Amino acid sequence: MDRTIVALATPPGIGGLAVIRISGDYAIEIADKVFKGKKPLNDCPTHTIHYGNIESQGLLIDKITASIFREPHSYTGENVVELGCHGGQLVAEQIINLLLDAGAHFAEPGEFTRRAFLNGKLDLAQVEAVADIIHSNTVAGVKTAARQLNGNFTKRLKNLRTELLDIAGLLELELDFSDEGIELIPKEKIKEKIINAIDFSNGLADSYLSSEIMRSGFFVGIVGYPNSGKSTLFNRLIEKDRAIVSPIPGTTRDYLEESLFIKGITIRLFDTAGLRSTSDIIEIEGIKIVDSILKQSNLILVINDITYGREHSDSLINKISLKHPTTKILIAHNKIDLVNLNYDDTDTEIFISAFKNIGLENLKHRIYDIAKNSIERESDILINQRHANLLKQASLSLSTALESLDNNMENEFIAIDIRKAVKILGELTGETWNEEVLDHIFSRFCIGK
Amino acid sequence: MDRTIVALATPPGIGGLAVIRISGDYAIEIADKVFKGKKPLNDCPTHTIHYGNIESQGLLIDKITASIFREPHSYTGENVVELGCHGGQLVAEQIINLLLDAGAHFAEPGEFTRRAFLNGKLDLAQVEAVADIIHSNTVAGVKTAARQLNGNFTKRLKNLRTELLDIAGLLELELDFSDEGIELIPKEKIKEKIINAIDFSNGLADSYLSSEIMRSGFFVGIVGYPNSGKSTLFNRLIEKDRAIVSPIPGTTRDYLEESLFIKGITIRLFDTAGLRSTSDIIEIEGIKIVDSILKQSNLILVINDITYGREHSDSLINKISLKHPTTKILIAHNKIDLVNLNYDDTDTEIFISAFKNIGLENLKHRIYDIAKNSIERESDILINQRHANLLKQASLSLSTALESLDNNMENEFIAIDIRKAVKILGELTGETWNEEVLDHIFSRFCIGK
Repeated sequence: MDRTIVALATPPGIGGLAVIRISGDYAIEIADKVFKGKKPLNDCPTHTIHYGNIESQGLLIDKITASIFREPHSYTGENVVELGCHGGQLVAEQIINLLLDAGAHFAEPGEFTRRAFLNGKLDLAQVEAVADIIHSNTVAGVKTAARQLNGNFTKRLKNLRTELLDIAGLLELELDFSDEGIELIPKEKIKEKIINAIDFSNGLADSYLSSEIMRSGFFVGIVGYPNSGKSTLFNRLIEKDRAIVSPIPGTTRDYLEESLFIKGITIRLFDTAGLRSTSDIIEIEGIKIVDSILKQSNLILVINDITYGREHSDSLINKISLKHPTTKILIAHNKIDLVNLNYDDTDTEIFISAFKNIGLENLKHRIYDIAKNSIERESDILINQRHANLLKQASLSLSTALESLDNNMENEFIAIDIRKAVKILGELTGETWNEEVLDHIFSRFCIGK
Repeated sequence: MDRTIVALATPPGIGGLAVIRISGDYAIEIADKVFKGKKPLNDCPTHTIHYGNIESQGLLIDKITASIFREPHSYTGENVVELGCHGGQLVAEQIINLLLDAGAHFAEPGEFTRRAFLNGKLDLAQVEAVADIIHSNTVAGVKTAARQLNGNFTKRLKNLRTELLDIAGLLELELDFSDEGIELIPKEKIKEKIINAIDFSNGLADSYLSSEIMRSGFFVGIVGYPNSGKSTLFNRLIEKDRAIVSPIPGTTRDYLEESLFIKGITIRLFDTAGLRSTSDIIEIEGIKIVDSILKQSNLILVINDITYGREHSDSLINKISLKHPTTKILIAHNKIDLVNLNYDDTDTEIFISAFKNIGLENLKHRIYDIAKNSIERESDILINQRHANLLKQASLSLSTALESLDNNMENEFIAIDIRKAVKILGELTGETWNEEVLDHIFSRFCIGK
C-alpha cells in the first residue's frame, strides 16, 4: 500500500469546480512537486486549505486550492490532498498527468474507498452504502443508503450474530453436561431465536427487488403496435419533444429513455419501436431491443389504439405475458378522443388520448402507485445481489440447524450450522472477507471514489 | 449583494465527490444551520476543513466536509463555505434544498464569478478565461485560457491603452502651443504607434475563428450520397460501432456526433443522413439537419462511392461549395478495394476503403493537418465574439484617427477618436462596463460557477 494514488473525484463534464484526490504515504510530497503556493504543503497543518498555481514547463495550467488531510484523519485513513481546480475535464486531466509524472499512480475503481475499508474507516455495509448513495436514482434510495452509512444496519447484524454465537456456545457447552441431561437454554427458546433469525434474513433478502427499484428507479417499457401513439405519449409524459413523431409506422427504431420524478421515485420510461411483423432489417434489430427492455421492466405499458377496438392488442398482450409472466402489465387505450364511447378505467386498463392530453394525469398516478407499492417498506439497508445471496445462504444454514433441532440431532451438528450462518452474516459487514469479495464490491465503484 | 447564494459547483452526474458552494455575508451562519460538526463553523478560522453530518428531520442525509473561506480571501471575495458531500446528484440536491430553507438563494448562472469580478478578484478577461477553461474542448484552448487567466493579456492591453492615452494627451497639449508651431511628438511617430495598435487589434480580432476551434474543436461534417459508406467510415474513425450500419440507403436519419482527439486538438465528427431526393418525410427532416451541420463545419468531408466513378459526387460537391463557399472541402473516395485502379491522393482528394481499413490513417492525418493550420498561432487570449467586436470597433476608431492625421485635421479630432478606442479597449478587461455587458458574459456560465 505504499502506492500513492490519484484520480478525479468529481464527475467528468462541465462544471465550475473539479476536485482531484491524492492518497497515500507520499500524497503531500507528490502534491508539492506540482503545486506552487506560499509555502510547501508539507509545512502546513492538517485540515487547512491553500491557494497556489499549477505550472508545466513554465506555463500556468491553473490557479487552484489544495486541501490537506493528514493520516489517519482522512477519508482513506492515509495522507490525502485534494486539489480543487477549474471545472471542465481538460484542466484536471493535465494536472493528473503532472501528478502521475511526479510519482503518483492512477487509482483503480473504488481504490480510495477500498483503502478506507482496509484502514478500518468504514465497514463493508457502509462501503456499499457509499456506492448506493452515488448511484441511486431515487431520493428514497439515497435516504436508505444514508441510514446504512450511519452503521445502524451493521449494529443490527452484529446483535444478531452475537445472539446466534451465544446460542451456538450454549449448545456446545451443553455437550459437556450431556450426561447429566442439563438444558442450559430451553429448546423452544432456541427454536424461536433461530426462526426469528431466518425471518430476518429472508425478509431482507426479499427486499432486494424493492432495493433495486430504490437504487435504479422503476422501469416502465412502453410497447404497442406501430402507430398506436407510443412516442406521442412518451413525449407528453416527459413533457418535451424527445421522440421524433410522424404518421409513418416504424419511426422509432432505437429506443429512447427518459426519467420522470414523482414524489421521490424515479420512473424510467422506455419508448420502443412498434411491434409488428416486418422484413425491414433495421426494424428487426429494433424489435430485438424491445424484448431486452421488457425483460428489465418493472411495468410493461401496452399502448392500444382504441379506434381498432378494445381487444385490438390482445394477441400482443398474450405474447408479452407468456414471455414475461411475473411482470405487471398496464394497458393504455389511446386515441379515446376519436371514438364516441365512454369507458371506465379498470385495474389493468386506462383510457387516454396522448394527443389531446386526456387521462394522462391518471396514467401518471397509476404508474406512481404501482411503483410505490413495489417499494414495500423503508429499511436500514439497500439490499444488493451480494447481500441477498449471503442472506439466503445464512437462512439456509439456519434452516438446517432448525431441522437438526427438530430431529433431536446432537447439539454439535446444530451448532456447526449456526456458526456457519454467523460466518456468512459476517461477510455482509466485512468482519470476514477475502480479496475476491472486495474485488467484486469495488468493481461497482467509479474511479475517484 | 446581501443575498447569500448557493449552488452545486461540480458537474452533475456520477462521481465520488460533489461540492456545494455557498457565498455571501451569511454563508457561514446558513451553513451552520444544516451542518452538525464538533463545533459551529462560525467559531472556526478561515481556510480550515471540518467533518460533520447533514441531517433532516432527525435522519442522516450525508456525512460531509465543510471548508471555510472568510472574506476577502475567497473566490468571490465574500464569506464562502464549500460542502463536500458524496457524489451523485440526489444527495447534493437534498442538501441544497436544506440550505435554501435555511435562507440561502439559488445562484444565477455565473453569479459566483460575477461577484468575484464586482469585488475586484478578477478582471473581465480573466472572467472569460474561466469560462473558456471550463468549456474548451481542446488542450490548446485550455492552455491559452490559463495564460489569459494569468492576466498577461490584461497587462498588454493596459500598456496599449496607456500608450494611446499618452498620445491623445500629447496631441491635446500641443493645441495649447499650436500658435508657436511646437510639435511635442513627431507626426510619423504617432502614425507608427496608431498603425501598430490597429494591427494588434485586427490581428487579435482575426484570431476569433482559431479561438473558436481551440474552444469548441474542429467541426467535420461527413456528407455523401446514400450508401456511400459514411456511417462505416464514421465508426472506423471513432473506433467504435456508434452508427447503425446497414445495406439499406437512408439508415442514418438523425445525425451522430463523436469526437476524436489528435495531439491536443479535438476533431468533432458529424455523421449525417445521405443526401438524395426523397419523399420520405423523416428523411427530409434529416436532410434539413445536414444543412445546418455543414453551416457550422470547419471542414466538409464528402464521401464518394468510387465504384460509380471519381466524378460521381461532383454535382453534390458543386452544390455544397456554392452554399458554403468559404468552407474547405475534402473528398474521400470510398470502396477503393472494389475497383482495380490505383489512384494517388491529391490536395483535395484521398482514396480509402472504410470497410477494408485502407487509407484511414492518411485521412486522419489529413484532417488533423487542416485543423492544425486553422489554429494559426498561440496567443495570450482566446478571442470570443464580444472581444472580436470590440477590437474591430477600436480598430475602426484608430483608423479614423489615422485618416484625420493624414488629412492634417485638428489634433482635437484625432485625440477624440483615440480616446474612443481607449474606452472600447477598456471594455475588454472590464475597466469600463455596464450591466448589459455583464449579463451577456455571465449568460455563458453554468450555475455554480
